[in-house]
Amino acid sequence: MKRLKMGMVGGGPGAFIGEVHRKAARMDGHIEVTAGAFDIDPEKSQAMGRELDLDPERVYDDYKAMLASESARSADERISFVSVTTPNNWHFPIAKAALEAGFHVMCEKPMTMTSAEAVELRDLVRESGLVFGLMHVYTGYPMVKLAREMVRQGDLGEIRKIVVQYPQGWLARAIEREGVQQASWRTDPKQSGAAGCIGDIGTHAANLAEYVAGIGITELCADLSTFVEGRPLDDDGQMLLRFDNGAKGLLHASQISIGEENNLAIRVHGENASLEWHQENPNALHVRKLNAPEEIWRRGNDYVGEKCEAAAKCTRIPFGHPEGFIESFANHYVNFAEAIRAHAEGRNPSADGSDFPSVDEGVRGMRFIEAVVKSSQDGAVWVKLEND
Amino acid sequence: MKRLKMGMVGGGPGAFIGEVHRKAARMDGHIEVTAGAFDIDPEKSQAMGRELDLDPERVYDDYKAMLASESARSADERISFVSVTTPNNWHFPIAKAALEAGFHVMCEKPMTMTSAEAVELRDLVRESGLVFGLMHVYTGYPMVKLAREMVRQGDLGEIRKIVVQYPQGWLARAIEREGVQQASWRTDPKQSGAAGCIGDIGTHAANLAEYVAGIGITELCADLSTFVEGRPLDDDGQMLLRFDNGAKGLLHASQISIGEENNLAIRVHGENASLEWHQENPNALHVRKLNAPEEIWRRGNDYVGEKCEAAAKCTRIPFGHPEGFIESFANHYVNFAEAIRAHAEGRNPSADGSDFPSVDEGVRGMRFIEAVVKSSQDGAVWVKLEND
Amino acid sequence: MKRLKMGMVGGGPGAFIGEVHRKAARMDGHIEVTAGAFDIDPEKSQAMGRELDLDPERVYDDYKAMLASESARSADERISFVSVTTPNNWHFPIAKAALEAGFHVMCEKPMTMTSAEAVELRDLVRESGLVFGLMHVYTGYPMVKLAREMVRQGDLGEIRKIVVQYPQGWLARAIEREGVQQASWRTDPKQSGAAGCIGDIGTHAANLAEYVAGIGITELCADLSTFVEGRPLDDDGQMLLRFDNGAKGLLHASQISIGEENNLAIRVHGENASLEWHQENPNALHVRKLNAPEEIWRRGNDYVGEKCEAAAKCTRIPFGHPEGFIESFANHYVNFAEAIRAHAEGRNPSADGSDFPSVDEGVRGMRFIEAVVKSSQDGAVWVKLEND
Amino acid sequence: MKRLKMGMVGGGPGAFIGEVHRKAARMDGHIEVTAGAFDIDPEKSQAMGRELDLDPERVYDDYKAMLASESARSADERISFVSVTTPNNWHFPIAKAALEAGFHVMCEKPMTMTSAEAVELRDLVRESGLVFGLMHVYTGYPMVKLAREMVRQGDLGEIRKIVVQYPQGWLARAIEREGVQQASWRTDPKQSGAAGCIGDIGTHAANLAEYVAGIGITELCADLSTFVEGRPLDDDGQMLLRFDNGAKGLLHASQISIGEENNLAIRVHGENASLEWHQENPNALHVRKLNAPEEIWRRGNDYVGEKCEAAAKCTRIPFGHPEGFIESFANHYVNFAEAIRAHAEGRNPSADGSDFPSVDEGVRGMRFIEAVVKSSQDGAVWVKLEND
Repeated sequence: MKRLKMGMVGGGPGAFIGEVHRKAARMDGHIEVTAGAFDIDPEKSQAMGRELDLDPERVYDDYKAMLASESARSADERISFVSVTTPNNWHFPIAKAALEAGFHVMCEKPMTMTSAEAVELRDLVRESGLVFGLMHVYTGYPMVKLAREMVRQGDLGEIRKIVVQYPQGWLARAIEREGVQQASWRTDPKQSGAAGCIGDIGTHAANLAEYVAGIGITELCADLSTFVEGRPLDDDGQMLLRFDNGAKGLLHASQISIGEENNLAIRVHGENASLEWHQENPNALHVRKLNAPEEIWRRGNDYVGEKCEAAAKCTRIPFGHPEGFIESFANHYVNFAEAIRAHAEGRNPSADGSDFPSVDEGVRGMRFIEAVVKSSQDGAVWVKLEND
Repeated sequence: MKRLKMGMVGGGPGAFIGEVHRKAARMDGHIEVTAGAFDIDPEKSQAMGRELDLDPERVYDDYKAMLASESARSADERISFVSVTTPNNWHFPIAKAALEAGFHVMCEKPMTMTSAEAVELRDLVRESGLVFGLMHVYTGYPMVKLAREMVRQGDLGEIRKIVVQYPQGWLARAIEREGVQQASWRTDPKQSGAAGCIGDIGTHAANLAEYVAGIGITELCADLSTFVEGRPLDDDGQMLLRFDNGAKGLLHASQISIGEENNLAIRVHGENASLEWHQENPNALHVRKLNAPEEIWRRGNDYVGEKCEAAAKCTRIPFGHPEGFIESFANHYVNFAEAIRAHAEGRNPSADGSDFPSVDEGVRGMRFIEAVVKSSQDGAVWVKLEND
Repeated sequence: MKRLKMGMVGGGPGAFIGEVHRKAARMDGHIEVTAGAFDIDPEKSQAMGRELDLDPERVYDDYKAMLASESARSADERISFVSVTTPNNWHFPIAKAALEAGFHVMCEKPMTMTSAEAVELRDLVRESGLVFGLMHVYTGYPMVKLAREMVRQGDLGEIRKIVVQYPQGWLARAIEREGVQQASWRTDPKQSGAAGCIGDIGTHAANLAEYVAGIGITELCADLSTFVEGRPLDDDGQMLLRFDNGAKGLLHASQISIGEENNLAIRVHGENASLEWHQENPNALHVRKLNAPEEIWRRGNDYVGEKCEAAAKCTRIPFGHPEGFIESFANHYVNFAEAIRAHAEGRNPSADGSDFPSVDEGVRGMRFIEAVVKSSQDGAVWVKLEND
Repeated sequence: MKRLKMGMVGGGPGAFIGEVHRKAARMDGHIEVTAGAFDIDPEKSQAMGRELDLDPERVYDDYKAMLASESARSADERISFVSVTTPNNWHFPIAKAALEAGFHVMCEKPMTMTSAEAVELRDLVRESGLVFGLMHVYTGYPMVKLAREMVRQGDLGEIRKIVVQYPQGWLARAIEREGVQQASWRTDPKQSGAAGCIGDIGTHAANLAEYVAGIGITELCADLSTFVEGRPLDDDGQMLLRFDNGAKGLLHASQISIGEENNLAIRVHGENASLEWHQENPNALHVRKLNAPEEIWRRGNDYVGEKCEAAAKCTRIPFGHPEGFIESFANHYVNFAEAIRAHAEGRNPSADGSDFPSVDEGVRGMRFIEAVVKSSQDGAVWVKLEND
C-alpha cells in the first residue's frame, strides 16, 4: 500500500506530542514523515530534520515556506497532509493555511482559540471537501469503541448518569516558572487560550463522554479554580452537566491532584447496565448488569470482535499483550489515512475511514470551553451549551 | 470488664441495620443485648426476643414501655443505653425520650427529620450530659482514622480539593413497589425525610469528607434527580462544594448506578500530597506525594500504629486478615462504651472515648440535607450551609 | 435460640487466635464464653477471666480442672463444648481429654503433632459420636463455598491444574529471638511440630485446594527451606502436586516473603473454565470461561444465592459492605453450633450443620505435613500421600 | 540519524510476531523495513512486499536469495541486519547463514532447536564479531530494568526466593486442528522443538527471573503435562528451581489455563525487600520493604530516572500514558541499533547498546529447555542446568 507523506508543523526538540504523532504515524507503515517546520527556531527545525534523517530541502523555516514549497512539488512527491502539533494559538492559522493550500490536516486539540475560529475552520473544511482530523486521542482506544457500541446497541438502555474525570497532578507546583516547556505554554493564555486545565484535558473528558454515550451536553454549571498562586489560568475545574436526553453528569479535571498521572476515566450508567473504563488500564472495559456478576471485557479476544468490529479492527496484538497510548493515537492515523486514500480515489471512505474526531468535534470543544469559562466567571451558574 | 446492657428500638425480623448493631455491639464482649422493642408489631418484637434468647419480660411492645420499665429497674440491672435503629422518622422522638429518661443513646443517621429537631436534640444532650453517639459508621475504619491523622499532622499541606463519592445501584428499579422493606421506607418521605439518596448515603459522604479533611463545607450547588418514575424522593444527587479554607469539592451519591454496590470513596488533594480511600477495600490507604512512588498503607502494620495510635487501637487482627464493615461499626461502639464508662466513673473519657460521631455531626448532617434540597429545588444554585 | 456455652483452653493475654475465637463465637449471639483455662499461668488466666467479665469460679488453672469442674455441673449449666486455641503441641491431649469427658470440641489446626495422634483422635470422635470442628478458617468464606459449588456443578469440567499459594513475610527476621510470642512457639519444633511454615499455613493451602476442587492430593515433591539462620524449622516451602483425577498442582507457602501479609490465593483451572480467589480480597470470586469476559462474582448479591445457597446463608450483610476474616471464622462456629444442637436434639444436622472442617481434615492435614517433611528431607523427591 | 535497513525472514500474511517486529522497528524512526523473504510461499512473500510498499526486487523467494542478493549490493544500499521471525526450526539455519554472509541478526526465541546448535551459533557470533540480538521481549520493559537495578544496588539484600509464572489459556482446546496457524506450528515438535509451552513461554519466564535477580538457575525439578489429548508436546509445566546463591524458586507456565491471557509475572523476595511485576500491567513495579507501606513505582516519573537511568531512557511518553508490549519490543531494537552503529563506527557501544538479550541468553534458554524436558521425562527429578 502506497505510504502517505506527512508534513509536520511543530514537534521540534523537546516537544512531547509532536514526537508521539511521529511514532504513531510511522508504526503501521502507512505514513512516513517527509517534511516539516518543526520549530519556530529554524536551527532547531533543521536539527530535528537531521535527527529524522530527512532531506534537508524539506525541512522548513516556517509553515508558510513548507506549504508553498510542497505545493510546488509534483502530486506524487509532495506531502499528502499536514500535522499541526504546535501550542494552541498556532492551530488555527496553520490549519487554515494548509486547507487553503489544498492539504488535508490532522490537528491537535483544542482546535482553535475561539469558537468563531472553529466555525470558520469547519466551514472551510466543508467547502474544500478536504479531510480534517482532530487528535482527541482517547477515542482511538479499542475498548472505548466497544463501549460506544454497547450503548448504540442498547445494552445500557436509556442513559441516566455519566461521571467522567481527568485528574492529573503535574502542575501542582509552579513549574512553568522553572523552565518546563510543557508547563509554560499551557499556563499562558496567549498560547493556551481562555482555559488552562479545562482546555487541555477537560475537553478530552467532555469529548469522551459524548462519544461513548452518544448524547450531547446541553447545559453546565462549572467551578474553575487556580490553586497555584500567580497562574493566570485555571488548573482545576469541576462541573455539573445535563444532557439532551435528560441524563445528568459530572465532569472534573485537575492538574494539581498530586499523584494522579493521567487518570481519565468514565462511568456511564443506564437503566439496564453500566460501563466503566480507565485510560491508565485501557485494555479492559467493565460492564455491570442488574443482578449479574461484573464483567471485564478485554481487548483482543474474539468475543470483543463479535460484539464490535471497530474494536477488533483497531487491535494490533493478541490479548494480554498490552497496547497503550501510542496505539490509540495510531488508530486515528490509520482511519485518517483511509479517509485520505478514499478522497484520492474519489470514493466514500469505509466505516473506519469516518471513525476519527473531525472538525465538528473541534467546534464542539470550543463551545464547551467557552461555556465553562463563562459559567465559572459568572459565579458557577448554569450556562447553555450551543449545539450546532 | 463489666459488660454494658443495651436496649434496642428497631432491629426486628428482616431489618438490616439493627442486626448489624447487635453483631457489632456483641463482638468485643463489652456489650450485651438485654432488652428491646424490636418491631412496631409486638408479636414480631417478641419473636426477635426469643431469637435472641432474651428474658421475655425485657422484650417490649414499644419504646415507651421499654423506657418506663427499664427506668424502674435497679441501676445495676437496667440497660445502660438505648440503640435507635428504626426508620428515620422515629429517631427523634425515641432518642429524645431516651435522653429524658436518663439513658445514653446510640442513634442511626440521619439523626432527625429536620434541623430544628436536630438542634433540639443537641441542646438536650448538652443539658443532660449524657453520652450520645450517631452511627456514621464509615469513620470507624482504622484507615479513615489514619487518613485524618495524616491531614492533622500536615502531611498534605493545605487542602485544595476533595472528591467524595457514594454510588450504589440497588434502587435502579422500583423495588419499593415489590415489597422490599429496605427500599420502601427509604423512598417514602414520611419515613425517610426530605431527601432520599442524599439523606441515606449522601450524608455519609459529607461526614467522611469533613472528618478526614478537618475542614467544613460552607456552600454547595446541588442537582438532585429521581430517575425511577413515580419515586417521591431523589435517587441520585451530585454537587459542587466549597470549604471554609478555600478548598473545592465534589460530592456525588447515587442509588441507581447499576453494579455499584457500596462504593463510598474519597480523594483528598493537598498542596504536598494526596490521599485515597475506598470503603469496599477498607484495609488500604493510598498516599501519593510529589515525585515519589505511590504508597499503600495497610491496616495492622506497625508503621500504621507508629503514625496513628487511634488506627492501631481499633484494629483487631493482624495485617492481611481482612477486617470489614462490622468491625468499623464495632469501633464506634467500643469508643461509645468507653465514654459511658467514663461518665459512670465521673471521669473524662480517654481520647478514644471521644472518637465517635456525636450529636454535633447529627446537626451538621441535617443542615447539609436541608441545604442540598433547597439548592436543588431552586434550580441547582449555590446555597450556604449554616455552621453552628 | 438458646445460647451455647463455650469453654476455652488458650486465648490468654497476648494470644492472637484465641481472641478471634471469642469474637467470632460471640458475634452472632449463638454462643457465649462461659468458662476457660486461658493461660498456662493461672494468674494470667484469671486476669483474662476478669477482662471477659466471667464468673471467677469458671476460670480455671488448667484444662483438667475445667473439664472436671464443668462435668460436675448440671446439664443446663455446664459448657457445651471446648475450644482449643493453644500452641499445637497441646491440641491433642486437650481435645482427647475433652472428648473423653463428653464435650464437643472445636480445635485449632494443625490438629495434632503426628498423624498417629490424629488417627487416634478421629477414632475417638467416631466412637463418641461427639461433634468435632477443626478451624481451617478459610473455607468459611462465602466465596470459597461458591467456588466449591461451581466445581461441583461441573462448571469447570474436569480439573486440570491448581495453583495455590500462601505467602507471608512476618518471619523474614528472627523475631522469635526478640520475644514475639506468636513467632517463638511457631518456630519451636516442640510446640509447633515437625514443620514450621508448612504446618502453620501450608496446611491451610492444601486444605483449601482439596475443599474447592473436590479432588485429593496423591503425591507431592516438596522443597522446604529455612532462610533465617538458626531457625530450627522451615520458614518457606514449595511443592509440585499430583491429584487423584490426574490434575497437577503447585503449592507454595512462605513466611519470609517480605511485604506479603496473608496472601492465601487459589486458581483452579478446568477444561471449561477457571476460578481465582484471594483471601485478602475475599468478597470476590473471579470466573473465567472460554472466549467470554472475565466475571467477578461478589458476595451478597442475589445471583450468588441463586447459584449457591450455602454461600448466601453464611453472608451477614449486603454486597459492598465488606465482610472479613472474623465472619469467615464465625461461619464455622455457626455451623458447628447447629451440629451441636442437632446432636442435643437427636436429629441429623442440616446441610449447614455438616459444613465445617472435621476431624477427617485433621487427619488429612497431618498426613500432608508428614509427607511434605519426608519429601524435602529425602532431597525433594516424590512421596505418596496416604489417603484414608 | 541514518536509518538502518532491515531484511526480514518470516512475517508473512497471518504471522503474529513478524508484524510486531516491523511495528517495533519502525516506531522510533531508526529502522526501515527494506527487504524480506516473508513467507515460504513466494506468492505470499510478494503480497506482503506490496502491502509494505517495498521495492519488488527486494522481496525474495527465500532467505538464501535475500542474503545473496543483498550481499551483492553496495554497503550503503544493502540491508544492515536480518530479523528472523519464522517458526523455531528455521531460526538456526537462517541466523547462521546471515552471520556467515556478514549480516547482524535479530532472532526470535527460542534461538535454536538444540543446545548444540545454540553453542555453534554462539561461537559463530563470537568469531564474527557481529551483533546478535535475541527477542526475549519482556526484559525490554522499563520497569523490568528498574527491578534489575534495584537488585543490583542491593535494595533487596541477598535474594531468597523467586516466584515466576507465565500462564496462558489460548491452547486449552485443540485449536491446532482447526487451522489456527499460531497453534499448529507451536504444537508440532518438528517446528517447535523438544518442548511446547516451556519452549514458547517458559523460557521467557526463566530469562526474566535470571535477568531481574542477577542469579542463575543451577538445578530444577520439572513436571510437564499435556492436557489436550493427542497433542505431541507439553501444554503446561511447573518446576522447582534452585539458584547459584542458594535461593529457591518456582516457575510455572501454562497454555491451558483458561482465561489467563499473557500473565507473565514475577516476585523476587530478598532478605530486605521484595519486588513484584506483572506484564499485563507493565507500567508499575511493586516494592515492599520491611515494616513500610507498599510502594508502587510507575514508569515515566522523575524518581524512576533518578534510580535507574536505563529505565528512563527506554521510556517514550509521560507517566499515565500507558506504554505496552510494542514499546518493550522496540526498546530492544533501539539498543540493538545502537550496537550496530557502534560496530559500524568501530567504537564500543554505549551501556544501552549492550542492554538487549544476546546469543548467550539463547544458549542459556536451550540448556533450560533441555534440562526441563529431561527432568520431566525422568519422572520429575532434579536435573542440573549446565552453566556456560
